[in-house]
Amino acid sequence: MARRAGVPLSAVKYYQREGLLPEGVRSAPNQVAYGDEHVQRVRLIRALLETGGLSIAAAKEVIAAADSRETPLAEAFGVAQHAMAASRTTESAPSAATRDRILAAARARGWQMTVDNPGVDTAARAVDGLRTIGFDAPEGYLDAYAVAAETAAAADLRALTGRNSADGIAELMVVGSVLGDPLFAGLRRLAQQSATREFFPARKKEGEST
Amino acid sequence: MARRAGVPLSAVKYYQREGLLPEGVRSAPNQVAYGDEHVQRVRLIRALLETGGLSIAAAKEVIAAADSRETPLAEAFGVAQHAMAASRTTESAPSAATRDRILAAARARGWQMTVDNPGVDTAARAVDGLRTIGFDAPEGYLDAYAVAAETAAAADLRALTGRNSADGIAELMVVGSVLGDPLFAGLRRLAQQSATREFFPARKKEGEST
Repeated sequence: MARRAGVPLSAVKYYQREGLLPEGVRSAPNQVAYGDEHVQRVRLIRALLETGGLSIAAAKEVIAAADSRETPLAEAFGVAQHAMAASRTTESAPSAATRDRILAAARARGWQMTVDNPGVDTAARAVDGLRTIGFDAPEGYLDAYAVAAETAAAADLRALTGRNSADGIAELMVVGSVLGDPLFAGLRRLAQQSATREFFPARKKEGEST
Repeated sequence: MARRAGVPLSAVKYYQREGLLPEGVRSAPNQVAYGDEHVQRVRLIRALLETGGLSIAAAKEVIAAADSRETPLAEAFGVAQHAMAASRTTESAPSAATRDRILAAARARGWQMTVDNPGVDTAARAVDGLRTIGFDAPEGYLDAYAVAAETAAAADLRALTGRNSADGIAELMVVGSVLGDPLFAGLRRLAQQSATREFFPARKKEGEST
């Protein structure tokens, strides 16, 4: 089963010990049967922990929310967002002034959100961090990132409305919340390289794509 | 100094022990002088570790690159990108087919990048992770995220060209690479909440912003 999922056996045992993965069905004294859904679950856990950077506790919460038929759809995003925020409990509070700037930038785009959305603090901390190197993000910079976020969120919504069961929607809401961040981050690295090479040309390197 | 930077004294000592922060200048037998640049540096280290999620080793590399007058500007982004990728050494390789899809999506937007850009693997792993819940990201989904990444990268470039020293540009390239991700992630949470509440209405909650 570990081989089929492409992860080390020690990882599968670890996931089971941490309560992230149910035991298989004992089919014979020395044999445990695992189905395809077990294999998929192992791959999902790995993606949440490694690619999404979640803690074990947050991954557990996210999986429970994705599995639950109790969580109303409107709350599935919130569960994922709070679990992701809780993965970083050591983080300090952003400045109140920066929080206000983030909320103003969001409202300028006509967004409606609750003030307890953990995204406000996440974004505000990043802006505070940029100020430590003397870069006070101008309105245009925040607005460009807000436009980018809106573009991604619209694609997320289209993907959700294309699923044909409430379970599938909740699952994608939760897992997509976690994995959309590294998808954007990876593509941004590529776009940055492309954008900056025109302005800051370097010598031609091997393995270059044109 | 720790108080001025808003972090616990133990954190400052930890940064110094790890070689992230230089010692202050001994001004008297029992006193060490720290300047404003020390305070800013402490805030920057905290932002890279906590908000950016970097490892100590990666933060050290990023700070060295931002400080260096030796790193050619065209390579400053690369240094930051590789340090961020190295923060996650346990990650498994994405599937070759998904890597190809990411490269195709990037080329479809006319981007020019080197095939060793770590963003390819980061994005491909996220797409592989989404497949574990049966969501095979369609072209339109990848393209929407690529558009979002392009919007952010263009804002990054505008911010860079507005700086008036090579040092300032390198510093923003490196630190902005790290902190642009949580800025986007936070704003995406807000945009998601706003987009989904129209489609999946929930009961009105306290603290709601309109």
